[in-house]
Amino acid sequence: MATRGLKLVGWGYEGDEITEVERQTVISRMCQRFGGEFEIREAPGEDAVALHAPRLPVPAELFAFTTDSKRDRLLHTYGKSYPDYARQFLGDYRNAPDIVARARSEADIVAVYDYAGRVNAAVIPFGGGTSVCGGVEPEVGSTFNGTISLDLTQLDGILEVDKTSRAARIQGGIRVPAMENELKSYGLTLRHFPQSMELATLGGMIATRSGGHFATLYHIDDLVESLRTVSPAGVIESRRLPGSGAGPSPDRLMIGSEGSLGTITEAWMRLQARPTFRAGTAVLFDDVFKAAEAVRVISQAWLFPANVRLLDSREAFNNGFGDGQQSVVVLAFENADHPVDAWMDRALAITKDFGGQFDHDAAKSGSGHRAGAAEAWRNAFIRMPHHMKIAVEMGIISDTFESAITWERFPEFYKAIVSATENACLKATGQKGSVSCRFTHCYPDGPAPYFSFQAKGRHGALAEQWLEIKSRAFDAVITHGGTVTHHHAVGRHHMPWYRRQRPDLFASALQAAKDRLDPKGLLNPGVLLAVRS
Amino acid sequence: MATRGLKLVGWGYEGDEITEVERQTVISRMCQRFGGEFEIREAPGEDAVALHAPRLPVPAELFAFTTDSKRDRLLHTYGKSYPDYARQFLGDYRNAPDIVARARSEADIVAVYDYAGRVNAAVIPFGGGTSVCGGVEPEVGSTFNGTISLDLTQLDGILEVDKTSRAARIQGGIRVPAMENELKSYGLTLRHFPQSMELATLGGMIATRSGGHFATLYHIDDLVESLRTVSPAGVIESRRLPGSGAGPSPDRLMIGSEGSLGTITEAWMRLQARPTFRAGTAVLFDDVFKAAEAVRVISQAWLFPANVRLLDSREAFNNGFGDGQQSVVVLAFENADHPVDAWMDRALAITKDFGGQFDHDAAKSGSGHRAGAAEAWRNAFIRMPHHMKIAVEMGIISDTFESAITWERFPEFYKAIVSATENACLKATGQKGSVSCRFTHCYPDGPAPYFSFQAKGRHGALAEQWLEIKSRAFDAVITHGGTVTHHHAVGRHHMPWYRRQRPDLFASALQAAKDRLDPKGLLNPGVLLAVRS
Repeated sequence: MATRGLKLVGWGYEGDEITEVERQTVISRMCQRFGGEFEIREAPGEDAVALHAPRLPVPAELFAFTTDSKRDRLLHTYGKSYPDYARQFLGDYRNAPDIVARARSEADIVAVYDYAGRVNAAVIPFGGGTSVCGGVEPEVGSTFNGTISLDLTQLDGILEVDKTSRAARIQGGIRVPAMENELKSYGLTLRHFPQSMELATLGGMIATRSGGHFATLYHIDDLVESLRTVSPAGVIESRRLPGSGAGPSPDRLMIGSEGSLGTITEAWMRLQARPTFRAGTAVLFDDVFKAAEAVRVISQAWLFPANVRLLDSREAFNNGFGDGQQSVVVLAFENADHPVDAWMDRALAITKDFGGQFDHDAAKSGSGHRAGAAEAWRNAFIRMPHHMKIAVEMGIISDTFESAITWERFPEFYKAIVSATENACLKATGQKGSVSCRFTHCYPDGPAPYFSFQAKGRHGALAEQWLEIKSRAFDAVITHGGTVTHHHAVGRHHMPWYRRQRPDLFASALQAAKDRLDPKGLLNPGVLLAVRS
Repeated sequence: MATRGLKLVGWGYEGDEITEVERQTVISRMCQRFGGEFEIREAPGEDAVALHAPRLPVPAELFAFTTDSKRDRLLHTYGKSYPDYARQFLGDYRNAPDIVARARSEADIVAVYDYAGRVNAAVIPFGGGTSVCGGVEPEVGSTFNGTISLDLTQLDGILEVDKTSRAARIQGGIRVPAMENELKSYGLTLRHFPQSMELATLGGMIATRSGGHFATLYHIDDLVESLRTVSPAGVIESRRLPGSGAGPSPDRLMIGSEGSLGTITEAWMRLQARPTFRAGTAVLFDDVFKAAEAVRVISQAWLFPANVRLLDSREAFNNGFGDGQQSVVVLAFENADHPVDAWMDRALAITKDFGGQFDHDAAKSGSGHRAGAAEAWRNAFIRMPHHMKIAVEMGIISDTFESAITWERFPEFYKAIVSATENACLKATGQKGSVSCRFTHCYPDGPAPYFSFQAKGRHGALAEQWLEIKSRAFDAVITHGGTVTHHHAVGRHHMPWYRRQRPDLFASALQAAKDRLDPKGLLNPGVLLAVRS
């Protein structure tokens, strides 16, 4: 019944610690940036945390898979957002669920719904628990008698594999590494690798419209062939179809519903053959807007690079590329069928038209192994989730947010968001912050810019200072026409801006759909839609 | 106030008649196929049709854009399906709308909704009027006091063009040729060309999830950047975003809603640069399943041909390819940025692995003009809508339907549907029919097979015989796991099978959304959801 040794505070599993070298690199970078001394604080351990007694008993029918142990409740209180960490450091677990149910089957899920309905408890689906937007925190106001965290990680099987159509029927609670490991034996891969991949579950990625591996094609929405969800009102299972024009897509209503309409128990996912040909390189630019133009033209040329990630000069420097003056475009092609040289050659020629500098020999099609800049980027990328805890220990406010904007508005958008965030850091902390940007995904009509910021905060007030910065940054995102989220979901943190972005009448239609699927309003209250009054 | 000279019976505009040569080609093919004599009948003209008096007056507030003229009512009774033609030949216009409103603005649409709500009339949005599934026929049962056909073709402007992001804000009622003509001056194109392109409107294509030009990528769903719809409860307008993960997509609820949730008045559409490089050829196969394997591998290789259309041996023969024994794959690449030889070479190499025969020289990258097989195919394709009227004149039952299925089930699906349709033709008419198949679209996980059938029917009973054949064919489609429609929409004709395919609980959620957007249930009743009781 243990949660596979997950850390109470920090990224990943116990024993998988960041190395002292990595730790010192992060610390010295912060010292360089913010100067002066840092008071290092530690988060309270399990024993030091005061936790309210469970307001719900574990009933007989849930006993076999439900617990009210302190550690399980603490482990299901938060996701992995910055304010989650900040509050963990303060020992603030006031929103801990009263019980944690680890469903082993759809019948278990139905039993949880039934119990919740009887006792008026909220049910919060919990997959990888990696939400960076308050998506899994049982903060549901005062209209419920208690909260149940519905952990889905026991639903972790691959049930069928269709090698011909390249698809598999997979349970929602499986984590990415286990899924990829099993698919590997068929020569297949979902190739959907969010930064949270170590812990993320398939169902969680679908429920949050997660961003994945492919920078220019195939968002997770496109990889879902059919979906099975369990709502309090029953089951919705769509047909396995490569395409269909039969009315509005049933799947698209559930994709992105963040546990508010039902629990994703199974999906047939479209898979890829494992790539055998790869080419990757980094291209340097003196001007970030020229670099963006190059990325735009590549994105509009039907070349579909697996990766085309623009890092502005600060972001590049922070990730060990360039001299702090130049922007970088990390460019990679991959294919399981044929060499990708023609593709890479054309993409590089485009970058050259916009003043890009690159080593042509380094970009030759390889035998399937990553190398060079792309590999360096990938390694840094998957370690980043470990850094947030160090930031909180040091009293640094550190977060990221991403949006999307059409190309013609990008230059103004970029300047406005960087400037608003810099000003917000100064205002909230009295000291200059650091703001940088990269593209995570690029489409023919625009990029998804992803902003990172750090500011030197004050222990004890980190969550409040974070909120002040975030609020000003998000005001700017919404005012300048962006989306509140490209692939981090809405959760509870983004609700005020999601409300401004979303058409009111669509909200009303979505609420009507929820009322039908979840008549008592028990599922993840406060996410996407207001908590029932 | 005239409907731009559309034919009352037949495809397209008055004066644009099929040539006598084309006509004789169709007739002689039918004689070859079914032997014997044909009694040629003619459809009654406007004067010969008995039409019930309008049950609704044209009120003062709609007077400027609304008519109850006989011709306008007749022109808005039907789409372009086979049973539509068959009933036109019988002079059966019992479902003619009582009045026809040609909205010039959103205010006009709102005025129509208001009036309809006051007098309890159904409102049926009418774009190109090319529905082949009863999507625009005012057949709404007896619970309404009358019906209003809401013609949208006056909303035909391009309001903004963004050349950088390659997108344009376009009104829903514009027809494809006018839209493409205007976009051409910007070097842009939507490149979405359904067979109905001469008449089809943008809003109609979005409302029906229409199939378009690109065989392997970019369904119309993917080309919608943002959408503006007017429902009785108000307006839903989404943000212009290249991507977003902020909750379930508002656009995806309206895409495919077939006029039952609201009227699409505007969309920002993602456009393409006009292709300057093209390569196309035809590949012959002795075995249709080997041909399908080749198409599968091409579809899974990230080559994204603009066209990869498999024609089985009968379909090929009917379209002037091959000898009636061989299947054909029409293969075409196009690009606005670079030559496509590397792409074509690899695709042809794949076809060779599966026994494909082709002329390599014919497949060289051209200068942007179509040639050879692809051009021949295209010309035949756009004339096909003219043939249906000839079929009805001759007493031939002739129709098409399309589905989608994953690759591993395709061979059995193909055999089952062809066999069921052949048996249905025999049973309904006492004589052997003709059934053929092509792929219209191909995805990594499966094709969209499109079936054509002809059978010699009996004048006076054509609609009934058609329904008998169609019912058995669609029973087989649903039983064997396909979708009731890949790109022809559901309308009224497909409702019995759509109900079997669609998850019940999703239907319930969709009904709840409709109740919120269209509280009186006035919009296109009977399409997607049951007429209110």
